Amino acid sequence: MKIIMIGEAANHQGTLRASLRDPIEIVTLPREAASDAALDGVVAGEDVVVSLRFQRAGPGPAFRLLHVPGAGLDGIHLPSLAPSCAVCNVYEHEIPIAEYVLAAMLEWRIGLAAMRRSFTPETWSDLYRNRAPHGELHGRTLGILGFGRIGRAIATRARAFGMRVLALSASASDPDGLADAVLAPEGLSRLLAEADFVVIACPLTEATRGLIDADAIGRMKPDAVLINVSRAEVADEEALYRALRERRIGGAVLDVWYRYPAGSTEVVPPARRPFHALPNVLATPHSSAWTEALPRRRYAVIAENVRRLSAGEPLLNVVRPAA
Amino acid sequence: MKIIMIGEAANHQGTLRASLRDPIEIVTLPREAASDAALDGVVAGEDVVVSLRFQRAGPGPAFRLLHVPGAGLDGIHLPSLAPSCAVCNVYEHEIPIAEYVLAAMLEWRIGLAAMRRSFTPETWSDLYRNRAPHGELHGRTLGILGFGRIGRAIATRARAFGMRVLALSASASDPDGLADAVLAPEGLSRLLAEADFVVIACPLTEATRGLIDADAIGRMKPDAVLINVSRAEVADEEALYRALRERRIGGAVLDVWYRYPAGSTEVVPPARRPFHALPNVLATPHSSAWTEALPRRRYAVIAENVRRLSAGEPLLNVVRPAA
Repeated sequence: MKIIMIGEAANHQGTLRASLRDPIEIVTLPREAASDAALDGVVAGEDVVVSLRFQRAGPGPAFRLLHVPGAGLDGIHLPSLAPSCAVCNVYEHEIPIAEYVLAAMLEWRIGLAAMRRSFTPETWSDLYRNRAPHGELHGRTLGILGFGRIGRAIATRARAFGMRVLALSASASDPDGLADAVLAPEGLSRLLAEADFVVIACPLTEATRGLIDADAIGRMKPDAVLINVSRAEVADEEALYRALRERRIGGAVLDVWYRYPAGSTEVVPPARRPFHALPNVLATPHSSAWTEALPRRRYAVIAENVRRLSAGEPLLNVVRPAA
Repeated sequence: MKIIMIGEAANHQGTLRASLRDPIEIVTLPREAASDAALDGVVAGEDVVVSLRFQRAGPGPAFRLLHVPGAGLDGIHLPSLAPSCAVCNVYEHEIPIAEYVLAAMLEWRIGLAAMRRSFTPETWSDLYRNRAPHGELHGRTLGILGFGRIGRAIATRARAFGMRVLALSASASDPDGLADAVLAPEGLSRLLAEADFVVIACPLTEATRGLIDADAIGRMKPDAVLINVSRAEVADEEALYRALRERRIGGAVLDVWYRYPAGSTEVVPPARRPFHALPNVLATPHSSAWTEALPRRRYAVIAENVRRLSAGEPLLNVVRPAA
């Protein structure tokens, strides 16, 4: 068995090697190998391919396992894979995304950045005498749209702050009892009417595209804050921008955007509307999950699956079993 | 029975009234009444006095209860109180202080403020392509000096982030099982050597004054962050400033200071050394507990004690029982 790492995955060769128990040959290939039959002479039937993308014009080569080093399968063309090839993915990004969401909610209520900017030896005495009270998360209601790994990781942390948690979930299930109430999709209006923070943590599907439209925003509290760490298009761009500009909601924390640059040189704005210039928007560059620890955790899962494959044990995170 | 609110407490007459179940007469007096026998003609034996300060040159007037609307008793001269007078205090500040500490740790690891500053329509494309990974709280070790209400409120939240919690406590007790280890004071060196964040959450006493001196700081990890939400003097000013300037520790989050302005006009710097100018210091003006919700929660406890006193039930938070 050898491991073939393609494109961006190849940058993590050292990370994967550090997690492998046994020495296994690792071959790295450029991004183009994901969609080019040039790979096919390199790969053998017992190999593992690690890649965010895979596509062939016709049937692809046979190998044991395609391991996606992320959660999304949108880069994988499943019909290109031989039926004997299993597909696994990895998560672990729910940890940094939940930390980002809590950091953003705390910043919204406490305003640490502004406190820090105002503090100098000259301002200290008057600041101390005239302290303006800030807010708390304690006792506030958090509405979470989507109650998968990310939503549950956010709920775990929010509960420790004494927040009330409402979750919207297609399955309406909460096996760990993390939410005060789990609502079916028809409960959206109730969630929006009660939440002080609304976090979008559901995938983008035809059912969720534009879910937060002008009508939904109109149901939110006038000081509620929308946080999007999923996909921009779950919120209607024009409706959200207008509501923020006209201060019909308290604000928004936006880490995901309507336009992404292609390739290594394209320059595009993140949206048609200038969200970043609104004082009630906290805008960040799709960075919520982007931590030093994330690839270490993800490649540790991949290394564990390589070990399991060698030992004939059941694999973790199987999204398509081998036929 | 009537309630007499003195000085700063008098500003919260409306807050207290909103929490009282029954209409009770409230009298407000200026700050000077706390140390002036002018009060003595107003107060009757069955009354409740709400004040942060109380002092008489000789024996004071008899009343039922002195309710301090804060945790500290440093403004109360107990011998001035008649033996029949009970003394109660209030807490509730552990909630905002714990939120501040978590906000500061998250900001330290994630850097939301810098992310926000860097984000513009022009920078977006390159920021997205060249995202610099940030840190996580998950898996980091938090050392808490003092494991009272504040330390335990911090531990509750830190655990939900997957942090390892070491607490230093004179009683070495942890009835709620919040810490991975509770160390007696002799365990300070171990805590300092293992912690990524060290939070000072103990009171200032002769045992804790200067506890974080040059030797203690020298035991900390080179990237560890010291957070002080207690009293500045627990950390030696000169030793801390030098360690920060020479980058022998990662940084500090300081909300409490070495000098406070007296009266309504004095202007003093917060310290002899310019901590605020160091890039690895996050300095704020003693604001961690200063929230809108804090007086509401505190006066709700005071109103409950007034009800209990009327009903002859045991009082909450008794720091000195009536003789």
